[in-house]
Amino acid sequence: MANDAYIRELGEKARKVASTLAGLNSTCKNQALLSIAEELSANSAKLLAANQEDVTAGRAQGLSDHFLDRLTLNEQRIENMVISLRELVNLKDPVGNVEKMWRRPNGLEIGQMRVPLGVVAIIYESRPNVTVDAAALCLKTGNAVILRGGTEALRTNQFLVDQIRAALTRAGVPADAVQLVTTPDREAVRSLMRMNDYIDVLIPRGGAGLIKTVVENATVPVIETGVGNCHIYVDASAEIEMARQIVLNAKTQRPSVCNAVETLLVHRAIAPEFLPLCGADLKAAGVEIRGCAVTREYLPWAEAATEEDWGTEYLNLILAVKVVADAEEALAHIATYGTRHSEAIITSDYKLARYFLQTVDAAAVYVNASTRFTDGFEFGFGAELGISTQKLHARGPMGLEALTTLKYIIYGNGQIRS
Amino acid sequence: MANDAYIRELGEKARKVASTLAGLNSTCKNQALLSIAEELSANSAKLLAANQEDVTAGRAQGLSDHFLDRLTLNEQRIENMVISLRELVNLKDPVGNVEKMWRRPNGLEIGQMRVPLGVVAIIYESRPNVTVDAAALCLKTGNAVILRGGTEALRTNQFLVDQIRAALTRAGVPADAVQLVTTPDREAVRSLMRMNDYIDVLIPRGGAGLIKTVVENATVPVIETGVGNCHIYVDASAEIEMARQIVLNAKTQRPSVCNAVETLLVHRAIAPEFLPLCGADLKAAGVEIRGCAVTREYLPWAEAATEEDWGTEYLNLILAVKVVADAEEALAHIATYGTRHSEAIITSDYKLARYFLQTVDAAAVYVNASTRFTDGFEFGFGAELGISTQKLHARGPMGLEALTTLKYIIYGNGQIRS
Repeated sequence: MANDAYIRELGEKARKVASTLAGLNSTCKNQALLSIAEELSANSAKLLAANQEDVTAGRAQGLSDHFLDRLTLNEQRIENMVISLRELVNLKDPVGNVEKMWRRPNGLEIGQMRVPLGVVAIIYESRPNVTVDAAALCLKTGNAVILRGGTEALRTNQFLVDQIRAALTRAGVPADAVQLVTTPDREAVRSLMRMNDYIDVLIPRGGAGLIKTVVENATVPVIETGVGNCHIYVDASAEIEMARQIVLNAKTQRPSVCNAVETLLVHRAIAPEFLPLCGADLKAAGVEIRGCAVTREYLPWAEAATEEDWGTEYLNLILAVKVVADAEEALAHIATYGTRHSEAIITSDYKLARYFLQTVDAAAVYVNASTRFTDGFEFGFGAELGISTQKLHARGPMGLEALTTLKYIIYGNGQIRS
Repeated sequence: MANDAYIRELGEKARKVASTLAGLNSTCKNQALLSIAEELSANSAKLLAANQEDVTAGRAQGLSDHFLDRLTLNEQRIENMVISLRELVNLKDPVGNVEKMWRRPNGLEIGQMRVPLGVVAIIYESRPNVTVDAAALCLKTGNAVILRGGTEALRTNQFLVDQIRAALTRAGVPADAVQLVTTPDREAVRSLMRMNDYIDVLIPRGGAGLIKTVVENATVPVIETGVGNCHIYVDASAEIEMARQIVLNAKTQRPSVCNAVETLLVHRAIAPEFLPLCGADLKAAGVEIRGCAVTREYLPWAEAATEEDWGTEYLNLILAVKVVADAEEALAHIATYGTRHSEAIITSDYKLARYFLQTVDAAAVYVNASTRFTDGFEFGFGAELGISTQKLHARGPMGLEALTTLKYIIYGNGQIRS
């Protein structure tokens, strides 16, 4: 209950400033972003000191090297935060856009105006750059934000949010636009997930466990960013050189991310020529292959794939490979095991390309390109809040618009309904 | 657990046909709609007999006259269902629209294609026309639907869904496009709300209690249709005749619906002239007024409003009235007590009109028009699924597009990420 009251207080403060934030013009919001950038640059030494305390405590707690790396700030990482803030200034503010407007027979003019969501809560894990990134994206879109970062980064996040709030105040923006949940108590997260009166949307940014917990327990509407078990289907009609380059790129360019390919499906007519070449590319790049029986006829060095492999997001230099009889078998495999993130076909067949684009149920469906492009920056949004694998509100890479909604505005001159 | 298995089976069947439904062209879907219309027309006598059983059982159970009225079908109501089906045929199918498409510097062409949500579950109360309406809207948008109507209407709904499925089969559309939950067990509803693997979105259509239960318990994403505690603010600058007509219309044209006005806010400078006239209009129309102390100086016959009145959606011929010092007080009142549905200002002041439109946080914000226009048909959508008071995905009157989502389609010619 103490946590509930604490979170309610944050919610009330956020709601109180939301209307002011919604009314800020872009110039003012951009000045505030620049003010935050200056504050971070000016106080990087103190920030590093605060972060060092977190890292030292984390190491004493026995956190893994991988975890400590994500937690650790350095001059370069601080500089990157500052660069991101400055880049955000240059993006177009979506708030206030009237997307459509039409006139009804009775003379009413009805339009849809893009407006902030209101109060956004973001729950994330240990990387401190998310604190600045999330605060900045919410500020740019006129939302109040309540941040709940990993408890291991609490000193760092506290210092960052103090700096952000000081910068906001200097820019004439209410400091409560950005608030941090400072209690490490997990019950506070539960309160946050159920505070429908004060929070308009909840965004979990982190691993599958965090997202599952939020989806299971939240009553506040959630924007879910999900896992990517992505496939490439190499059709009989594929250009072999193109297919080799795309598969290699999608698997090895950055294997740890959600848009990397995890399963390769190969038409049996092209497998005899394609698989030995593609297999050699992958082997040379250090990729372990887990193949079906037919795959292993062409790549005898591959491990045998189990049922589990088809459903696994490796996030690593491992690729499952299956030879299929035709495109229908590939589509059925994708429908069964895919996570509706990013799916690609490599083909020269016009009809099949269209059929694949229309049939596959995923956030991003590709013809003849690497799945690695599913990314807000690669799509040209200039920012990315995450990649949604849900179907409501936002699907695929989310830019600034995902943090807004549309309201109807209606201009009349005395219309009444008959 | 028996219910869980039953609902899972419905979910599996729906998911199985979803991809086929997504690929149907508009001509085929329209033929299926016409086929349903014919089936209903041809079998109206049997439908009335099934409905009569529900009504008789309901009366024996002691259901209220109001409830029985909503449950009862007659020739006219069946004819209205048939007319709605035929009208839906004439609406443009949103599926397959590519809303935007752009080319990236690397030559990738990225577009957003409108596609069905997939599997939609709709939980509703006793009106049997919702069964046909919901099935038809989902069919038109290429979604599979699982319907769960009020148990009091089970025989009627069962008959309707049997007819719909027969008509679908005749039109070459898989019958499992439309399924009905036939167990009256409430646990089945709970299963439906948590079947994330098979259901893409859940839409409760009904009273506040139903919606609250769904929001509290669902893990499946929900499109929430909410209550409307709508306000009209009559500014000092209002044209008095216009304000009188709009207030009378918004309160009395159909008081039982969510876009009817519930509280009138009046600027104190115009109150001496406006309130006696407006009060007389309302009194003549049988409206009971619950006013603040100042209101009662001008309308001595009005009841005294309590704190509770400001937060009440009467859905009846009752209006709360408050005199305010200025527009800011009106805005603060709306922000405190409004349910973010529909809010209106009556004013001749250009600057204030813009300020009100921009500041009020609601699905629909009006200048100089009745709140009663918040409606899919009045907005020109040709259909209405309900009025969303949530901010994610769909806000305000929902037409066919609310039953769709966008997926990214990407045309490449060998692009890899560097």
